[in-house]
Amino acid sequence: MKSLIRVGIVGYGNLGKGVQQAIAQNADMELAAIFTRRDPQSLAETTGVLTEHISAADQYIDKIDVMILCGGSATDLPEQTPQLARMFNTVDSFDTHAKIPDFFAEVNATSLVAGTVSVISTGWDPGLFSMNRLLMQAVLPQGEEYTFWGTGVSQGHSDVIRRVPGVKAGVQYTVPVQEAMDSIRAGETPQLSTREKHRRECFVVAEEGADRGEITRLIVEMPNYFADYDTTVSFISEEELADKHSGMPHGGFVIRSGVTGGGSRQIAEFGLKLDSNPEFTASVLVAYARAAVRLNREGNKGAKTVFDIPLGYLSPKSAETLRRELL
Amino acid sequence: MKSLIRVGIVGYGNLGKGVQQAIAQNADMELAAIFTRRDPQSLAETTGVLTEHISAADQYIDKIDVMILCGGSATDLPEQTPQLARMFNTVDSFDTHAKIPDFFAEVNATSLVAGTVSVISTGWDPGLFSMNRLLMQAVLPQGEEYTFWGTGVSQGHSDVIRRVPGVKAGVQYTVPVQEAMDSIRAGETPQLSTREKHRRECFVVAEEGADRGEITRLIVEMPNYFADYDTTVSFISEEELADKHSGMPHGGFVIRSGVTGGGSRQIAEFGLKLDSNPEFTASVLVAYARAAVRLNREGNKGAKTVFDIPLGYLSPKSAETLRRELL
Repeated sequence: MKSLIRVGIVGYGNLGKGVQQAIAQNADMELAAIFTRRDPQSLAETTGVLTEHISAADQYIDKIDVMILCGGSATDLPEQTPQLARMFNTVDSFDTHAKIPDFFAEVNATSLVAGTVSVISTGWDPGLFSMNRLLMQAVLPQGEEYTFWGTGVSQGHSDVIRRVPGVKAGVQYTVPVQEAMDSIRAGETPQLSTREKHRRECFVVAEEGADRGEITRLIVEMPNYFADYDTTVSFISEEELADKHSGMPHGGFVIRSGVTGGGSRQIAEFGLKLDSNPEFTASVLVAYARAAVRLNREGNKGAKTVFDIPLGYLSPKSAETLRRELL
Repeated sequence: MKSLIRVGIVGYGNLGKGVQQAIAQNADMELAAIFTRRDPQSLAETTGVLTEHISAADQYIDKIDVMILCGGSATDLPEQTPQLARMFNTVDSFDTHAKIPDFFAEVNATSLVAGTVSVISTGWDPGLFSMNRLLMQAVLPQGEEYTFWGTGVSQGHSDVIRRVPGVKAGVQYTVPVQEAMDSIRAGETPQLSTREKHRRECFVVAEEGADRGEITRLIVEMPNYFADYDTTVSFISEEELADKHSGMPHGGFVIRSGVTGGGSRQIAEFGLKLDSNPEFTASVLVAYARAAVRLNREGNKGAKTVFDIPLGYLSPKSAETLRRELL
């Protein structure tokens, strides 16, 4: 019997919980420990899992094969990935697009010296969507490509509406514009403005006596976040918010509409429809954790992205089985 | 300036023509020569391209970086791939599923000795669909997966209806059943019979005086090809067949409906809608030809499938550019 891949989780928010659940779905893996900046004792009582303060990670160098980093891209990962890559293979979902080149360079330098493999910026976008953009562009070099997100909860936009005066609670959904998708699927290649691609739906619980007209105006006219979109604001009760809007659904589509040969229209589309954004992202991270360990065992080191890793490394099945069953 | 990738085409049917057109869309490649079993002189006059008899391939060992094999899986590729892999990097679309393991073993043995890279069984299915099956299974280990083909022309079924007595000409479309796809996209995971997944539409030109009722009966009751499907037969004129049914559209979908964590439904789908099946398949082969050459230049050898090749190798862009633009 092969030994299990021993996984550590760093950070136990929604994503970290999703990783714990995803590990349980993969028979070749086990959760070794959770690392947190909070009080490890109280978290251990909640989770029933060995829980350590993040500062104790260095004691696990021989006990963990890969660390899955579940912190945020703003402040957690820029610090944690390079730090942990000195000791462990790592996987993260760093998604601050403009900073990816610098992040890659820093993590790569660290991992090369340490002899570890660090898979950066995986998940579904960046991640599976990026892979499909590359694949579709390579196959259809003449064409137009579109990414649509949603229908799904945008955490950033939801945070912003909660800070509007008079708003008690709220959630924001990013919704792809159906007409735009239909037109591309029908073979057109429109130039689309921001407003023509997505709209924004806000569900808001107002404080008692608040001016709802003013709340609506403040939201729909807000620069950067809402002004460039068709935005709707619906006022609902706290009960309805809890009942109908407590999930974290998301999804989207990458579509490329290309032309080959004598003008043949060729359309490729990859789409996701997710009940739980963090659980799905976590499932992607776990598949790449397997790849990181296997790559490292074969002698590879350095930072890797989804573009660098053969798909076969994601699967617990042998190359022979994959050829027989899936090709 | 980097030197161009010099590509040879073996076999000049619809697929070979599509490869020629696809090479013209890729600035880093050039068509070096076409190889044929027919009279090369007459083909050279048609194409305006250097054309050689296939037996002269060995004279091009230093002049061609990769051979794209455009023959059929029944008899051409089992002979040609091992033969040419002794001298060249190769790419083929071998799609006789049950024979892939043996084909891989034979080509791999040859390529390892020769020091060449042979990408076998690529295209869209096997190929892009296989990649998505692997990716979706790895990310969503608990789930059900479905492949639908169509709407598109099935060459094999079209050939079969043309052999029915009284049939002058005809074409067969494989059509995915909309209700089945809708149900899966809505989150259900039905067990589907052959009949529930696809239906078959036949457009037939009858010979004068032929018994149309008998033709219809012979087609819809034909074992293996039609009996297990809901099949419709429409009689049309030769003009209508030429006008409306001379293209080679195809496409299809791979859908996986999985469950993560606390029961969240997660649906991933990859779909193609192709005006020209051979031109799209050719475009995939050309992208993998680039990968074969790059892998070989880095010292790799042996048979490879779409599961073994990092996506970055398919693109003419550098890893740095890909991270910046597409991640």
